[in-house]
Amino acid sequence: MLNTTFLKACHGEKTNYTPVWIMRQAGRYLPEYRKIREQVDFLTLCKTPELAARVTLLPVDILKVDAAILFSDILIPIEAMGMKLEFSEKKGPHLYHPLRNETSVSRLRTLNPDADIPFVADTVKLLVKQLTVPLIGFSGAPFTLATYMIEGGSSKNFVNTKTMMYRQPALFHELMKKLTTMNISYLKAQINAGVHAVQLFDSWAGALSPQDYRDFELPYVKQIISELGSLVPVIYFPNNCAGLLKMASASGADVISVDWRISIAEAAGIIGEGVSIQGNLDPVALFGTKENIRKEAAEILAGAVSARTHIFNLGHGILPETPVENAIALVDMVHELSSKKS
Amino acid sequence: MLNTTFLKACHGEKTNYTPVWIMRQAGRYLPEYRKIREQVDFLTLCKTPELAARVTLLPVDILKVDAAILFSDILIPIEAMGMKLEFSEKKGPHLYHPLRNETSVSRLRTLNPDADIPFVADTVKLLVKQLTVPLIGFSGAPFTLATYMIEGGSSKNFVNTKTMMYRQPALFHELMKKLTTMNISYLKAQINAGVHAVQLFDSWAGALSPQDYRDFELPYVKQIISELGSLVPVIYFPNNCAGLLKMASASGADVISVDWRISIAEAAGIIGEGVSIQGNLDPVALFGTKENIRKEAAEILAGAVSARTHIFNLGHGILPETPVENAIALVDMVHELSSKKS
Repeated sequence: MLNTTFLKACHGEKTNYTPVWIMRQAGRYLPEYRKIREQVDFLTLCKTPELAARVTLLPVDILKVDAAILFSDILIPIEAMGMKLEFSEKKGPHLYHPLRNETSVSRLRTLNPDADIPFVADTVKLLVKQLTVPLIGFSGAPFTLATYMIEGGSSKNFVNTKTMMYRQPALFHELMKKLTTMNISYLKAQINAGVHAVQLFDSWAGALSPQDYRDFELPYVKQIISELGSLVPVIYFPNNCAGLLKMASASGADVISVDWRISIAEAAGIIGEGVSIQGNLDPVALFGTKENIRKEAAEILAGAVSARTHIFNLGHGILPETPVENAIALVDMVHELSSKKS
Repeated sequence: MLNTTFLKACHGEKTNYTPVWIMRQAGRYLPEYRKIREQVDFLTLCKTPELAARVTLLPVDILKVDAAILFSDILIPIEAMGMKLEFSEKKGPHLYHPLRNETSVSRLRTLNPDADIPFVADTVKLLVKQLTVPLIGFSGAPFTLATYMIEGGSSKNFVNTKTMMYRQPALFHELMKKLTTMNISYLKAQINAGVHAVQLFDSWAGALSPQDYRDFELPYVKQIISELGSLVPVIYFPNNCAGLLKMASASGADVISVDWRISIAEAAGIIGEGVSIQGNLDPVALFGTKENIRKEAAEILAGAVSARTHIFNLGHGILPETPVENAIALVDMVHELSSKKS
């Protein structure tokens, strides 16, 4: 039977304890994951349903988290739109022939998820048969995806992306429309296959000034959420969001996931009572002592009491060097500290 | 005669127009700077008063900014405390033998600015004879300096720094005390030599959760400012500050410099009426069209009207690839748009 604590919290229903999962919980910090990765490269792992499903399940067994998240990457659909993608251990993702002009944007293909990347739905279908907790699907928000497509990979200052925004706004908006269409069909395909909730990762939203966020990203995020919100709960994660939080909380999402650079009490105050909150322990806190982790987890749980409901998570993805025992301890502490004594 | 518009704004006095300067205004985007750098390496430039002074003056002549900032680097005093320092064009600063244990922290020397790094005061003395605008001295705030000393250079996640904070808090505080003492003597030496204001750069403050900022950085920042505040105006720049701004604005600084990730109107509201505000155009905006730069500058000037006073600046340092003509245009636009029509 499915443990629905996480889904209840997404919907704003009170639960007996605070559900917890961890961004990148099926990742390199787990020895079991690294063992599988010795056999296959990252993209093959994403594209092989049996393996992707196995990796997705690892943290459910090891950490006892209250939700699983599909093992994949936000750039998988971008590759299917026609951009050549490679991952290197050191430099991260590399997209060949980054978008810089109208021709390259117009050449992007419309994603047909079931035909182009059937392994995603296949992985979901395998998982929902086995899981004891809800499965979260995900996609990258348009601006975040656009940065990779325009820069060709990770970036420090997003000079090419913003230069397109400022100098070729019509072209930038055309790209954002394509990414919005992609997001909707991609997330609907995941929902049709069985995911119980979706998270929209806006990892680089915080690189935008509030004015630019309002003009170039928020309208697309709203459109995506409005298409999906009646189907499953939507979690929106605008990373480094303190200055954007008021706008982001009006995105229509059921849950706003906040990073660690703002106190969760202050964030809950900004978000208001209509939306749930997810977060927000500093990922590096897991390198501290267990006493310190407990103190910080308790402070976050206390700070979140004014939120509609709270889903505990890190403020960003768990780091590869994190001691596994501390991740296990964190999940246990959150469950214990938040359990209603009755 | 000295144009005192910038100093008046620091003190909260109304001015006829909004003063403007640009972080890293004497930097690589200027062809005149690159030409000098063809002859000498970065550290030699910092340590040669005639050259450092010449570079400091460049943007005053070229951009017509309302303040100059001493050409130097925040790691200059760290080298003098006993850590071997190198700069490479690609990787930035590298400090050898990063601090990881009690021995390495205890071995740090106490800075004696006039004996150890006399070229700093010498540069200031050369400059104050020539300048037509005020000269800003500066230092790196303790946490920001500690990250370089513990990581050995730039860092993405600050794992070593925060691990020391969480696992060896007494040792971390000992380091912060030494950096506080250094900051006070270093900035006092600059003030004695003639700088008219100082800016405390806290480039990595925004990597801290508000709780950690409160416990591990803010007390030291307050101590430094309280030692200097009666001598010259102090500008405090906690980069990526949206979630820390309320605390930072109680640091005692005369001016808080804010990055571009929060609207200046919202920031001014948080900072309140007792402190002036500096900022906050996205450095990448200078890659856009002049129309767009003008629009964004006007939006910032309008947003800052509720502040005590406003000093226009970028939200972070100007980028090396910035078109010089756009930087020149920005300074001109700020002067024109903010001039009182009477």
